[in-house]
Amino acid sequence: MRVYLDNNRATMVDPQVVEAMEPFYGELYADRDAPHKGARDAKKQYSIAMEKIYTSIHAKQSDTIAITSGADESNSRLLNSIYLHTILTGKKHHIIISERESRATMSAIRYMSAQGCHVSVLPLNSDGIVDIGMLRDIITPKTALVSVAMVDAETGAIMPIDEIAQICQELKVPLHSDATHAIGKLPIDVQMLGLDFMTLSAETFHGVAGVGALYIKDGSQIEGLYRESQQTINTVGMGKALELSADAQAFEMEDVKELRDELEEALREIPDSLIISPWTHRVGNTVMVAFEGVESEMLLWELDQVGISAYMESGRSIIQSIGADESLKHSLVGFALSRYSTQEEIDYTKEQITRCVAQIRQTITNTQEEIS
Amino acid sequence: MRVYLDNNRATMVDPQVVEAMEPFYGELYADRDAPHKGARDAKKQYSIAMEKIYTSIHAKQSDTIAITSGADESNSRLLNSIYLHTILTGKKHHIIISERESRATMSAIRYMSAQGCHVSVLPLNSDGIVDIGMLRDIITPKTALVSVAMVDAETGAIMPIDEIAQICQELKVPLHSDATHAIGKLPIDVQMLGLDFMTLSAETFHGVAGVGALYIKDGSQIEGLYRESQQTINTVGMGKALELSADAQAFEMEDVKELRDELEEALREIPDSLIISPWTHRVGNTVMVAFEGVESEMLLWELDQVGISAYMESGRSIIQSIGADESLKHSLVGFALSRYSTQEEIDYTKEQITRCVAQIRQTITNTQEEIS
Repeated sequence: MRVYLDNNRATMVDPQVVEAMEPFYGELYADRDAPHKGARDAKKQYSIAMEKIYTSIHAKQSDTIAITSGADESNSRLLNSIYLHTILTGKKHHIIISERESRATMSAIRYMSAQGCHVSVLPLNSDGIVDIGMLRDIITPKTALVSVAMVDAETGAIMPIDEIAQICQELKVPLHSDATHAIGKLPIDVQMLGLDFMTLSAETFHGVAGVGALYIKDGSQIEGLYRESQQTINTVGMGKALELSADAQAFEMEDVKELRDELEEALREIPDSLIISPWTHRVGNTVMVAFEGVESEMLLWELDQVGISAYMESGRSIIQSIGADESLKHSLVGFALSRYSTQEEIDYTKEQITRCVAQIRQTITNTQEEIS
Repeated sequence: MRVYLDNNRATMVDPQVVEAMEPFYGELYADRDAPHKGARDAKKQYSIAMEKIYTSIHAKQSDTIAITSGADESNSRLLNSIYLHTILTGKKHHIIISERESRATMSAIRYMSAQGCHVSVLPLNSDGIVDIGMLRDIITPKTALVSVAMVDAETGAIMPIDEIAQICQELKVPLHSDATHAIGKLPIDVQMLGLDFMTLSAETFHGVAGVGALYIKDGSQIEGLYRESQQTINTVGMGKALELSADAQAFEMEDVKELRDELEEALREIPDSLIISPWTHRVGNTVMVAFEGVESEMLLWELDQVGISAYMESGRSIIQSIGADESLKHSLVGFALSRYSTQEEIDYTKEQITRCVAQIRQTITNTQEEIS
C-alpha cells in the first residue's frame, strides 16, 4: 500500500486540473496576447481562470494578482521590491517576520539583514502560535513590512493574521502573509483579513508545481525589474485547482479532519509520544508528533519501507521555539493528509507507525543491552 | 485549415513532452527533496532531465543551470543580480545591450537606466544584424555586462555572438545571451561560444510555457534574494523538449528552411514586397516581410479569418534600425514555421497571403477612387 502524507509540501494534481490544462498542449498554446484566434481563445480561458482566482480569495477587481512560478518567487519578488524601493532608498530600515517563514523568505531576509536591514522576529507561544504581544511595540515609523505565514507548514498552526492585520492597519504598516498552507484548508478572504500582500502556490492545493501568485492590494505596488512570464496553461490549472479547493473546503475541514483526528488519537496512544501541533487553532489535515528516543530519520525510513510518506522538520526547531523538552528535538515526525486520503490508508498508517516505533525502540534497547 | 506560423512566440507542445510530464501529476508529484520513495523517484527523473539540459547546450558539470519560469525571469533575475551587486555597490555603472532585446530585458534596462546606470545600445547594420564595430571602444573598466540576444525574435537574424564573446573575453567583461530564439534552430555550445550567462525558455522549443533556465558559467554567480521554485515536472518537460529539439535540429535547418524558402519565394513574387529578414545569417524557420501600403493589422486580421496565425512587430521598429523606407514601418508581417509545419500548410499560406494582399490593396484603391 502507498500512503502519501506529505501534502503540506506537494500534492497530487487533481485529475480535473490535468483535464483543464490538456487543451493548452496541442491547441491553445499561442501567446495569449498575439493577434490571432488561437491566442484569443487562450486569453479567454486565462481570463476565466484569473476570475476564479480573484473570486476564491475575495480580491477586488482593482487589486492585482501577479502570476509567479510559486510561493518562493512570490515571497522573493515582494521582498526584493521592498528592499529596492523602501530599504535601499533609506525610506525604511526595518522588517518584522515570524520565526516560521518559508525558506525563500528566510533566505531573502538573511540577505537583507546582511545588507544592514534591521529584522525583528516574532516568537512563538508554547502552542506554536506566533506571539503578537510585542508587535505593537516593535513597529516603528521605519517598519517597511510585517510578514507572517498564515499557517505553519509543519505543525499546521493557524496564526492570528486578523489580529496582526488590525495592528498593522492601525499603525499603517503593510502586511504580507504567505497563505501556501492555508489555501483549501481555511476560508480565505483578503479583504476581511485586511492583507496588503498574500502568497499562493498551486502545488499545495492539487495544482501543478511551478505556478503561484502574489496578491497585491489596490494601492500597493510591487516595483522592480520583473516582468511576468507567459503562464497561461499553468494559470488555467491553478484557477481550476483553486475552484476545486474552495468546493472541497468543508470536506477538508470536517471529513479530512476526522481522519486526521483518528490518526492523532493513535499517535497519542503510543507510549512516550507528544503531539507538537497545537490543540486548537490548527488546520484539519496536519499533525506533528514527537516519539521520545526515536530519531525522525529512522522512523521516516521505516515508514517509507512500508510505503508511507511522512515528513520531518526542515528548518529551525519548533521544540526550542515552544519551549518543549530539548531531547525531543530530533524525534519529530509530521503527517499531512489531503482530500485524497482514505480510511483504509489511515488504518494502515496507524498500524504501521505503532509497529515501527515499537520496533525502533526495541532495537535501541537490544543494542544498549549488547553494549552493557 | 488552421496554420500556426507564430512559433517564435510560442510553440505547440510536443506530444512526447506531454507524455514525459504525465507521471508527475498522479504519481511523482512529491517534492523531490523529501525523505521518501516518491520523492527519490521524482529526483531521479529530475536529474536525468537536468543531464539532458546540460548536454544539449554543452555545459560543464561545474557550470550552474538555474531553473526559472521562462526567459523573462531568467533575464530579469540576471539583471537584478548585476544591478544589486555590481551597479548599486558602485563597482561598475555601465551595461551594453543590443536594441533588439526582449521586453523583460528592456524593461529591466529602463529601470536601471532611470536609477542612473549608463546604458549603451549597439545599433543594427542594414541587414538587421547587430553592428559590433564600436563594441571594443565603448567597453570600459566600468562595464558590468554585455547582453545580446542570439537570434532576433522577429526577423530571425543570427547575431555575431562568437565575435562579441571574443571581444568580451579579451576585455574581461561578462557576456549574456538570450538564446530563446536560437534553441533548436542552431547548434548551441556555451563553451565554444564563450558565454558567461545564457537564457533558455521551453515555450519556443515545443516545451510547456512557464519554465526556462539561466545558464551560469562556472566562476560566475547570480546573487540576490532568489530561491528556485520546485519545478520538477516542468524541468522534466523542458529536458525532454531540449533533447527532441537537438534531434530535430538538422530537420529544422534543412527541411523547415526549405519550406520557409518556398514561402519566402512566394512573398517576393507579390508586387511591392520587401523581405526584411537578412539574406544570410538567419535561422531556418523565420521570414519577415513588408508589403507597401498594406497595414500589418489589416493583413493579420485577414489571414486570421482564413485560419493563418502570423505576427507583427511588438517593439522598436526594425525599419528605422536598418534604415529602410519609413513608409514600410506599419506594414511588417512575420512568419515563423516549426518542425510541425507541413507542405500543405505552406501551399495554403502562399495562396491566401497573395490573395489577401491583393484584396487589401484593391479595397484601398476602391476607397481612394470613391473619395476622389
